[in-house]
Amino acid sequence: METSDNATAPESTPGSATSELTGIAAQDWAAASADPKYRAAVVDLLGALAYGELAAFERLAEDAKLAPTLDDKAELAKMASAEFHHFERLRDRLGEIDADPTGAMDPFAAALDDFHRQTAPSDWLEGLVKAYVGDSIASDFYREVAARLDSDTRGLVLAVLDDTGHGNFAVEKVRAAIEAEPRVGGRLALWARRLMGEALSQAQRVVADRDALSTMLVGGVADGFDLAEVGRMFSRITEAHTKRMAALGLAA
Amino acid sequence: METSDNATAPESTPGSATSELTGIAAQDWAAASADPKYRAAVVDLLGALAYGELAAFERLAEDAKLAPTLDDKAELAKMASAEFHHFERLRDRLGEIDADPTGAMDPFAAALDDFHRQTAPSDWLEGLVKAYVGDSIASDFYREVAARLDSDTRGLVLAVLDDTGHGNFAVEKVRAAIEAEPRVGGRLALWARRLMGEALSQAQRVVADRDALSTMLVGGVADGFDLAEVGRMFSRITEAHTKRMAALGLAA
Repeated sequence: METSDNATAPESTPGSATSELTGIAAQDWAAASADPKYRAAVVDLLGALAYGELAAFERLAEDAKLAPTLDDKAELAKMASAEFHHFERLRDRLGEIDADPTGAMDPFAAALDDFHRQTAPSDWLEGLVKAYVGDSIASDFYREVAARLDSDTRGLVLAVLDDTGHGNFAVEKVRAAIEAEPRVGGRLALWARRLMGEALSQAQRVVADRDALSTMLVGGVADGFDLAEVGRMFSRITEAHTKRMAALGLAA
Repeated sequence: METSDNATAPESTPGSATSELTGIAAQDWAAASADPKYRAAVVDLLGALAYGELAAFERLAEDAKLAPTLDDKAELAKMASAEFHHFERLRDRLGEIDADPTGAMDPFAAALDDFHRQTAPSDWLEGLVKAYVGDSIASDFYREVAARLDSDTRGLVLAVLDDTGHGNFAVEKVRAAIEAEPRVGGRLALWARRLMGEALSQAQRVVADRDALSTMLVGGVADGFDLAEVGRMFSRITEAHTKRMAALGLAA
């Protein structure tokens, strides 16, 4: 949500100054996609993101059933519907660049499904924390990657990561619940830690499986992404997570 | 879906000739809502429809998990999202006419939730048959009622009943499954019968509970709806259901 922690990393912070765009980030899709390795990496990325949105739709629709009031239910259904429309844009884009959307999404289905299966919330608050933590981490990650993408792909990725209102809604509800019943905070802090662990373990599995995507991540295709930079990226994401949890009243 | 069976009922078939609109059907909301009983009946109707759309959203999102392919999953998610947008229109309309949307929906939540709980599909095909049968019956019912409503409410009700594509998609998939494995037809025919039974039993419960709505249905508020007409309406709906099941390759 907040990128002030990024600003403290002086060297090669992507996206902090669009005027300095170089390499692929300075190109559009037509130019950048001439490199088949870059093309394959983008198809992977859009496929992962598209399946992620579809899975988010399902998760939020499922969580809507746990909503304590009709208004809460409607709020979650609205978010689910927004995720579905993001999915449609990504799927359509895959079609436009002559990639098979299903083929692009399939490799990521197992990891995302497993993540959701292993982190099924047992109540409404766990569902809200999961929506908030999951979206924030995914959003941080894709924003980091977006800065290294060609201008067309970057525009799409940033557009579908636009806040769908999860953040404020979840934060407000979770804070109120902790105020009303402070014990809840301890349980939700453990839950948030478990979510982060599962997310990292599934992310590692994806990176290990998908050559095109991981080659882009660790350099060699897009610019400026070497292994040390990936390490720094994970530090930034983890740090942002810790700050968000603290803001929520949870020790991360 | 098909209204040809309505055309065989000579007397007082609503909606068959809009040029003959009389009474409330010839009025707009501003005029018709001067009668507090009519107003209460419309709030009930919109509340029931709104909750029905929200429940349909949840059901379709749930069924999307049973989808055998990613394309099927996306198709159901699309329908779910369309139902959600219908819900939004109905909820917003309730707000416009100074009714509390949650208060209007609440009285129908139990009956609709119970219906869905008692008819949870055990597989993808049962889910499709349920979506098709449920939407068709609800659509038939609301179309019959719509013909007796003021012009503004009628326009909204007919707009949100606009086909969201469930019909063709479900029919095509179910037919193909029965062709591939004829035994499936018998199981799905039993399932469709159970759905119809549960739908009728919940509908009776709603009518018994909601004075304003049932008064409108059996006359006294809107025009032309006496008890005999309600009987004929149920006959038409049941007959249309039987025809749809036959078209699907199922004996109703």
